[in-house]
Amino acid sequence: MEVARTGDYVLLKLDHGENILESIEEVIDGEKTSLLVVMGIGMITDFELGYFDRDKRKYVTKVFDEPHELTMMQGSVAREGNPRMHIHTVVADKEHHTSGGHLLKGFAWMSNEIGFLRLKGVDTRRWMDKDKGVSVLHVSQVTE
Amino acid sequence: MEVARTGDYVLLKLDHGENILESIEEVIDGEKTSLLVVMGIGMITDFELGYFDRDKRKYVTKVFDEPHELTMMQGSVAREGNPRMHIHTVVADKEHHTSGGHLLKGFAWMSNEIGFLRLKGVDTRRWMDKDKGVSVLHVSQVTE
Amino acid sequence: MEVARTGDYVLLKLDHGENILESIEEVIDGEKTSLLVVMGIGMITDFELGYFDRDKRKYVTKVFDEPHELTMMQGSVAREGNPRMHIHTVVADKEHHTSGGHLLKGFAWMSNEIGFLRLKGVDTRRWMDKDKGVSVLHVSQVTE
Repeated sequence: MEVARTGDYVLLKLDHGENILESIEEVIDGEKTSLLVVMGIGMITDFELGYFDRDKRKYVTKVFDEPHELTMMQGSVAREGNPRMHIHTVVADKEHHTSGGHLLKGFAWMSNEIGFLRLKGVDTRRWMDKDKGVSVLHVSQVTE
Repeated sequence: MEVARTGDYVLLKLDHGENILESIEEVIDGEKTSLLVVMGIGMITDFELGYFDRDKRKYVTKVFDEPHELTMMQGSVAREGNPRMHIHTVVADKEHHTSGGHLLKGFAWMSNEIGFLRLKGVDTRRWMDKDKGVSVLHVSQVTE
Repeated sequence: MEVARTGDYVLLKLDHGENILESIEEVIDGEKTSLLVVMGIGMITDFELGYFDRDKRKYVTKVFDEPHELTMMQGSVAREGNPRMHIHTVVADKEHHTSGGHLLKGFAWMSNEIGFLRLKGVDTRRWMDKDKGVSVLHVSQVTE
């Protein structure tokens, strides 16, 4: 893992075989600001995508065990929360067909480049919404 | 709707059932800078996607009435224009199959998180291009 | 081509028929900082998508000659490298079906809006990784 942090950005580079979500958790562990995931490209393998079924209050999941192009990631990292992260992705297979959803698991294939914006002045907290059956982000302004 | 605005960002959180495009219009109503939409995740329902047919000079549209994962949004909000916004999206259904295009209509399902960058120092105006049959963005530099 | 550059952003607008990757190369030619591609929307035609086959160490490619909605672009421009750019995309056809992968070639259809973040304080270099058979980004922190 290679990481560069500035007052405005965090840029993360993962090598072949690294666990994507665990690596991001490690990166954000010491971070006190909210972050936005605005780029995530490379390739991904052994990953799991989720679709949230509101009636059943759980994710309908599918595991993909072939390497795919990681065409994008978008997400947020709350200042506080459980979980702090919420990441969506779209991937493409060898025929360039795409699949997408909530990223539940995945490993970098070849290399991953993941870019975060540091959202200074924005307070974000994610907590379990019992009515909805999922954790939901809450947004407010802070004076820092 | 929850909104946080700083000199650099706008972060918007929509609750279940809120109209996505109308909510964004409300958020940008008082905003005088250009904005880039760099993140839009959550779930979406009762939405309409467009593909612009240049020969017919109109959008080929499709309405989706099932909830989908909102895997991403990218777009721009011009300082001046009609319309000011231009937003594209990719969504995923329960089988993780994706569809995409120009977002013409849609409602937040569960929750939406939408992140904007404030493009200081960039002048953007969108106006109808009669040759093309659509509104097109124009970009120039400003001294502020 | 219309370009606006600030200390934080580069915003690029391409007109119908302009070569997307050659235009970006022209834009970044004088740029010494790292850039992140965080938005790329409009329409695209005569484009080629790639999927990297690790065993064969080359891209499996497909050429699309019909105009598609350009739903997104994400990528990076290294401070130094060969190539400096790495761009992924997802596109949608007239039926709103999506395809995605590594963008190897493409021309703007109607109009393209492409937004870059300037990653100050981050050093990025891309070079050929002989074991992997592709160029890979390397990330480190700089004091500027």
